[in-house]
Amino acid sequence: MTGDDRHAVPEVIAFDADDTLWHNEIHYARAQQRLQALLAPYRGDDGLVDELYRTEMANLAMFGYGLKSFGLSMIETAIRVTRGRIQAGDVDQILDLVKEMKRAPVELLEHVAEVIPTLARSHTLMVITKGDLLDQEDKMGRSGLAPYFCHVEVVSAKTEEVYRALLRKHQIPPQRFLMVGNSLRSDVLPVVALGGHGVHIPYAITWQHEQASATSRELDQPYVHLEHVGLLPGYLERLAAPHHG
Amino acid sequence: MTGDDRHAVPEVIAFDADDTLWHNEIHYARAQQRLQALLAPYRGDDGLVDELYRTEMANLAMFGYGLKSFGLSMIETAIRVTRGRIQAGDVDQILDLVKEMKRAPVELLEHVAEVIPTLARSHTLMVITKGDLLDQEDKMGRSGLAPYFCHVEVVSAKTEEVYRALLRKHQIPPQRFLMVGNSLRSDVLPVVALGGHGVHIPYAITWQHEQASATSRELDQPYVHLEHVGLLPGYLERLAAPHHG
Repeated sequence: MTGDDRHAVPEVIAFDADDTLWHNEIHYARAQQRLQALLAPYRGDDGLVDELYRTEMANLAMFGYGLKSFGLSMIETAIRVTRGRIQAGDVDQILDLVKEMKRAPVELLEHVAEVIPTLARSHTLMVITKGDLLDQEDKMGRSGLAPYFCHVEVVSAKTEEVYRALLRKHQIPPQRFLMVGNSLRSDVLPVVALGGHGVHIPYAITWQHEQASATSRELDQPYVHLEHVGLLPGYLERLAAPHHG
Repeated sequence: MTGDDRHAVPEVIAFDADDTLWHNEIHYARAQQRLQALLAPYRGDDGLVDELYRTEMANLAMFGYGLKSFGLSMIETAIRVTRGRIQAGDVDQILDLVKEMKRAPVELLEHVAEVIPTLARSHTLMVITKGDLLDQEDKMGRSGLAPYFCHVEVVSAKTEEVYRALLRKHQIPPQRFLMVGNSLRSDVLPVVALGGHGVHIPYAITWQHEQASATSRELDQPYVHLEHVGLLPGYLERLAAPHHG
């Protein structure tokens, strides 16, 4: 890799997966609604989402991200908020809900099916995602996008440290690296802090946990905000234009 | 890497983790006993282990390996074998059991604490393990062994295909690669089939799923069986001796 590094353009583009390449949070939101309906006979439906979030956060260090973790937290929350009155048949319904989520088709976000093959012709593409290894491999396989990505990295957290190790492992200078994702906290801020390029493409719903705090947004380094991934090729062209710096 | 490949000695040694470096299956066996005790008031305790195994196999493609998967399968089995009569408080006990397993200290197998640092001076060491990404990273971190391993690869399955891809990725010729593990099926046979070295070190308990079938044992290629990992350095010395071929 050559060139004036102050004006470096990205050669490697990494994408987050859930809610950047394909829909994910929507399935969790629907599951929460169904859990609410399931538990309605036992209680009012006030505060269930917050209770579930509290359980998920308490279990995060132990169970990590992903569907199985969500399933265990749903069951734990259901037992707690019904004060142990939930029937086993309804716990079984929660297990069915988890399996149904697992089987849900992988729906690409708008523009993804066109933009990824296009960018794969000019850039090295990778995926960097949190979550469950098997889940993410499985979704990648079913997405039809696998041939376009040179590497798929499933990590247990997306910290500056984790990104630094990945860039070292793949021998990518940060200024040649661009990360695209829907989470400021996980996809954009740590990469920008390392001297890489960050592109934030928000999804309609952001999981509470992924919302960046105001303080962490007060970064010197800029990141770019795009409305949808269809705008990414144009942004890359402007970055590469000679008068840009 | 140089030398006559027909007499190639391994330069990279990969270890399985669970029940090769540290105790694992014993925690699952104990959990099964506690599940049996928990469900005894609802039913006789006959056949629970088989029922649980049946659930785990049915869920394997969907949930994969690891503790969370085991937890979900325990709950599903408990509901089924009690015909829905299990109380929510007892489901909660199963969740507690899963958390307790997660918090269990990492106990190294005998000889591991001495052999790994010794081998790390002469060989490139890696870990190749199935299971949950977070679980395995966490156990590696708590084991004290992390500094000795150049790579830790958590994979969703240990097939010939997966080993081939890993060797390609790390640019390791199969004949320079030795895999050590307690599962013939996952650790030894696929590596030997690729032309690598396999060392089988059985653990006291083998999960039914990891037991190799008689037919798959009828391989042309040999693999080596050692009683414990303390014998590995001596085996490697014999392999490297000039008269060995």
